[in-house]
Amino acid sequence: MTENPDKFREARSILAPFGVRIQRLNRAKIEVQDPRPENIARFALVSALESHRRPTLVEDSGLFIEALDGFPGPYSSFTYDTIGLQGILDLLRHYRTRRAYFQSTVAFGSPTITPRLFTGKVRGRISKRILGKNGFGYDPIFIAEGSTKTFGQTSQSSKNMKSHRARAFQRFARWFLTPSTHTVAK
Amino acid sequence: MTENPDKFREARSILAPFGVRIQRLNRAKIEVQDPRPENIARFALVSALESHRRPTLVEDSGLFIEALDGFPGPYSSFTYDTIGLQGILDLLRHYRTRRAYFQSTVAFGSPTITPRLFTGKVRGRISKRILGKNGFGYDPIFIAEGSTKTFGQTSQSSKNMKSHRARAFQRFARWFLTPSTHTVAK
Repeated sequence: MTENPDKFREARSILAPFGVRIQRLNRAKIEVQDPRPENIARFALVSALESHRRPTLVEDSGLFIEALDGFPGPYSSFTYDTIGLQGILDLLRHYRTRRAYFQSTVAFGSPTITPRLFTGKVRGRISKRILGKNGFGYDPIFIAEGSTKTFGQTSQSSKNMKSHRARAFQRFARWFLTPSTHTVAK
Repeated sequence: MTENPDKFREARSILAPFGVRIQRLNRAKIEVQDPRPENIARFALVSALESHRRPTLVEDSGLFIEALDGFPGPYSSFTYDTIGLQGILDLLRHYRTRRAYFQSTVAFGSPTITPRLFTGKVRGRISKRILGKNGFGYDPIFIAEGSTKTFGQTSQSSKNMKSHRARAFQRFARWFLTPSTHTVAK
């Protein structure tokens, strides 16, 4: 459950190798204001399950920049739409550390399964310039640890292997496909 | 209903001349992510009324900067806590227009009264430097139209007469005190 079609496509292609198929739920996701994606995802899931009484996935993510005390964090989408990538670079102009991480938290539940959270993080740094046209959002200014390229310069398939969203959805898939941990009518 | 004690004190002193007394409701306000304070206040009010079945006021506000497409808007509090006033000045460095407005929206309702919204705005501009120690939040970088001083350089009593929050609460008070418009057990 997400209102962002790019995120949905990314999630679907991450889950495909596991044989897990998802459908996009066409309704408003209730996103609360909270500094932690975990809390946002959990609240959205519980709200969704009040009316959609089937197994449901909700994802929330953000870019957390250390020098800026976690900004833009849960408001990454609004911040991207307003001050944009250049705004982030302007804000970091005076800082020595450019450390940042992407976090994705997936919440899964159903009317009979207590919500479970699966979190993936990718640590890295903010680039000095906007580079690359792949991906979406902050991809062109984020360089993952051990890499010299931004996510915007990385192919979608390569990013799918190591992104924060990939890690969170892969954790979910591994749990979901282990029958002993839960029972779901698939 | 607010989690910010400064806002509560400001609201109480704005309403005092009308003879309207308020109490602070000691519970979490459910704030959704939405670019419009009207929607945030309405959602928080409706959520609060599910358990607090008495006449309730909820306020939501933000600073909307024209050149930044409304940033920080509804996320003014988080933005203040992370990038701070200097962050806003850094973001505006390259822009010619510094126009901005403060908006406050008050939502009032009860189990028997349909939610009503009262909005106050103050237009002005972002100063080039941080000036003054009065008020809170963005007061030291906001200069109201027709003034040469920031809200941070303005006395609390003077700000209470003309702030966005004052206008919204005054609108509420005038409506609340006009018996023909509604019936409330006071």
